[in-house]
Amino acid sequence: MIKEFSVNTNERNELVDITSKVEELVKDVKEGVVTVFCPHTTAAITINEGADPDVKKDILWKLSKLVPKDEGYEHSEGNSDSHIKSSLIGCSESVIVKDGKLVLGTWQSIYFAEFDGPRNRRVIIKY
Amino acid sequence: MIKEFSVNTNERNELVDITSKVEELVKDVKEGVVTVFCPHTTAAITINEGADPDVKKDILWKLSKLVPKDEGYEHSEGNSDSHIKSSLIGCSESVIVKDGKLVLGTWQSIYFAEFDGPRNRRVIIKY
Amino acid sequence: MIKEFSVNTNERNELVDITSKVEELVKDVKEGVVTVFCPHTTAAITINEGADPDVKKDILWKLSKLVPKDEGYEHSEGNSDSHIKSSLIGCSESVIVKDGKLVLGTWQSIYFAEFDGPRNRRVIIKY
Repeated sequence: MIKEFSVNTNERNELVDITSKVEELVKDVKEGVVTVFCPHTTAAITINEGADPDVKKDILWKLSKLVPKDEGYEHSEGNSDSHIKSSLIGCSESVIVKDGKLVLGTWQSIYFAEFDGPRNRRVIIKY
Repeated sequence: MIKEFSVNTNERNELVDITSKVEELVKDVKEGVVTVFCPHTTAAITINEGADPDVKKDILWKLSKLVPKDEGYEHSEGNSDSHIKSSLIGCSESVIVKDGKLVLGTWQSIYFAEFDGPRNRRVIIKY
Repeated sequence: MIKEFSVNTNERNELVDITSKVEELVKDVKEGVVTVFCPHTTAAITINEGADPDVKKDILWKLSKLVPKDEGYEHSEGNSDSHIKSSLIGCSESVIVKDGKLVLGTWQSIYFAEFDGPRNRRVIIKY
């Protein structure tokens, strides 16, 4: 099955927890793998800690330090940093599913990683 | 089905668009996921913008700025930067397929990312 | 099938070759894809050279240079660098399997990437 949902982002750089949205869509899967795919070139999908919001802040802060917004890029739209971050983080994750639940570690959440928001974005899943 | 094709690269660092090659190989797939795999340790697979060639340039330029060719590495072959970039970008992508078409966003292309060319490389796919 | 095994790490940053452990678990698979998943937020899975141990050293050294342990992060546990490295490298890899063997390139090994060890860790696979 291929399904999709939308994500509204509010910041230029933002990690939006989409774990429960993904889990809701795979609740009938007895055992499988769900591919979580971001169909955008200035955003990504990542899995990281969902408990302390400072982890999200630190990830975004450090990414922007490694890949600053302005650094003599050639792409004229002013969002080369967003494209670069997208390739560094990657636009898909594969998550195991068992009895309708995502097989994640205790502290793991699935994040939609926005690098050129705010925008209305899509996430496509396949299981 | 497992299939493969070759990619000839012309630069030490280069992003080669392999979208149409992958799509050609999955044209009989009604619905599924194709794993696009790079069996090399100094190259990778990434998905990013296919429209403006400056995006490719900026990605490669910034990666080489983050991970310079020479920086006191211990590996004697002089391509530690290539190995490091390979792990940062990742050697596979999972792409959803529907009715023989890759389910990609409007601006997305699949790239073979060469980090130690020019070489004759392989890409293996499984759907 | 979903299976798992444990990995004991001995250093704060370490790449542990898990190729043979994964291959042992998929030996009955005629053709498929195995998802290798790390259920931790301060570790990752990567594929890179298994021949020269200096490659592992260079990857870990450069990652720690890009993402130093202490750099004014906000997360209070002192391991923001580990979380950031985990998202940069990614917590899963998809590897093709044929006749019970992993379809890897000549020089490729699958690594459990520890970024906040030493710890006793888990790896979950699904094929």
